[in-house]
Amino acid sequence: MARVLVLTETDLRRIVQLDGDAVDCVEQAFAALATKAVEMPPIMRLDIPAHRGEVDVKTAYVPDLDSFAIKVSPGFFNNPSIGLPSTNGLMMLLSAHTGLVEALLLDNGYLTDVRTAAAGAVAAKHLARPDARVAAIFGAGMQARLQLRALTLVRPIEAARIWARDTEKAKQVARELTAELGFPVSAEADAHQACGGADIIVTTTPSDRPIVDASWLEPGQHLTAMGSDAEHKNEIDPAAILRATLYVADSLKQTRRLGELHHAIAAGLVSADAAFPELGAIISGQAAGRQSNEAITFCDLTGTGVQDTAIATLAHRRAVQAGAGQAIETTKASGDPA
Amino acid sequence: MARVLVLTETDLRRIVQLDGDAVDCVEQAFAALATKAVEMPPIMRLDIPAHRGEVDVKTAYVPDLDSFAIKVSPGFFNNPSIGLPSTNGLMMLLSAHTGLVEALLLDNGYLTDVRTAAAGAVAAKHLARPDARVAAIFGAGMQARLQLRALTLVRPIEAARIWARDTEKAKQVARELTAELGFPVSAEADAHQACGGADIIVTTTPSDRPIVDASWLEPGQHLTAMGSDAEHKNEIDPAAILRATLYVADSLKQTRRLGELHHAIAAGLVSADAAFPELGAIISGQAAGRQSNEAITFCDLTGTGVQDTAIATLAHRRAVQAGAGQAIETTKASGDPA
Repeated sequence: MARVLVLTETDLRRIVQLDGDAVDCVEQAFAALATKAVEMPPIMRLDIPAHRGEVDVKTAYVPDLDSFAIKVSPGFFNNPSIGLPSTNGLMMLLSAHTGLVEALLLDNGYLTDVRTAAAGAVAAKHLARPDARVAAIFGAGMQARLQLRALTLVRPIEAARIWARDTEKAKQVARELTAELGFPVSAEADAHQACGGADIIVTTTPSDRPIVDASWLEPGQHLTAMGSDAEHKNEIDPAAILRATLYVADSLKQTRRLGELHHAIAAGLVSADAAFPELGAIISGQAAGRQSNEAITFCDLTGTGVQDTAIATLAHRRAVQAGAGQAIETTKASGDPA
Repeated sequence: MARVLVLTETDLRRIVQLDGDAVDCVEQAFAALATKAVEMPPIMRLDIPAHRGEVDVKTAYVPDLDSFAIKVSPGFFNNPSIGLPSTNGLMMLLSAHTGLVEALLLDNGYLTDVRTAAAGAVAAKHLARPDARVAAIFGAGMQARLQLRALTLVRPIEAARIWARDTEKAKQVARELTAELGFPVSAEADAHQACGGADIIVTTTPSDRPIVDASWLEPGQHLTAMGSDAEHKNEIDPAAILRATLYVADSLKQTRRLGELHHAIAAGLVSADAAFPELGAIISGQAAGRQSNEAITFCDLTGTGVQDTAIATLAHRRAVQAGAGQAIETTKASGDPA
């Protein structure tokens, strides 16, 4: 008798939002990564260049959690031309005790959006100045919106600028976010201007060449780069790692291969085995975070399986509490009564 | 509007069996691996030693197929003590054009059983003597039963022996298979005796030390080893690769790391980069198979993502034809009418 709880995107949007609980669970996931014997295998990646498609599979087992997630994230970049979103996917939650599938989270990428934005909040919470008020967001997609919302959960943000390659899109997003968040959000056509005077800069683009110059970074600023999750992606001038007082990785193993660090290593600016703290070590007090108001902090987020396990576990707990979803008995035929 | 077809194990058992079609589709998958630009990333593996658990994730994209599978295979070896099967899992079928999830195959490992047995049939079809009549099966689990059934699809099998560490289990399986297949299947307590005079030997155990000695292999025999799918597993004496006239891998990249070949390399009997043909190359005529009635052939099966894509594609096509399964609209709440 194997029973699987199936949750749709609509179910999940009702029970999980980008809020303090989402930020807390992702924060705990990073702390676990630093303090527990987390098993997080390398990301599995399938490329389908004929259709401009790529699929990432991520997973992580966190000791003491009863379940672990496996997340499938497809990105197919011809989709918008036929009216479909580029990204998509689902998460599975399996019992850590038996391996049985407990829940299928047919979220079409929604939970990934939430846990990715929550990581931006966690980075700002531990690395940005406590009085950070002005944010600069690079990009005009879903993560641009969510990252700004995420910052408001952890810092007293009262103004923001949006820079995007397409300034019209930046204006549109700025209008929407002004209405939603209740503080002025403006579009800024000049990337350097967007950075100037910002307390927190977050880059959320799929860029494959730097859009933020190292020389633009100012004392006191915090920078989170979350767009790069593949070898060829690169948002930040590699020299920014040297300009920063403190560079922090979500997973050093991953940022050496996929993140902004990868490009600094490739440029010969830092050695391939240079040690940098991970976000979880700072959360758990094993490593020092921001040491002064003048420090420049730089957090490199590639997206980790522990975040998926954390958000899927939260979603499952909430679904059970709310009686959401549909239980499917896998040893009965679909037509038979449950 | 994202619609996912959910199929239960019961649905899938009704529409997919170990038959000629299953063997054909797996045969074609191996041929594709040899002749097309198949994308098959390394197996993702998560270990949870605290619960004697392991999870493999496999996938492969085959050009010209409209879909590709991602397969999640957990094995949790404490499960039998609480009345659950050790192995389990599900497959997902995604569109190769858009990455959208088309179907969830909640098969609890059933399709893996079928495609694994089908690979045994394909190996025998291309490597065993055409007149092979006597089979020796090592192991008493599901694959022991299925591999013997699979052989009957491709060779005129008329007798079989079962060897298992637990002779009582071997006797039980032998009784069941005699009744099912209509020819004598006997239990054989001595492994060497089991091999003697057999035309085809198939090993299906999770053994971590050799159970078949190289010196036992006789001219004209075909050996398929399908139990090893992890570094520590080892069913066949490493010297058997030298004793065999022809060694064939399902995927050379995988057998060098996970299969019987891995142990021959570790023992220094063959070099790490020694070239051997793959099953798909023999199917497609790129490499020679059995050359004489006296040859000893040895096929090393570790299980490949292309087999999963093949069987999941067959299952999906059959399900659509039969109107099986339940469509779930992921952008509607579970309680709402479809």
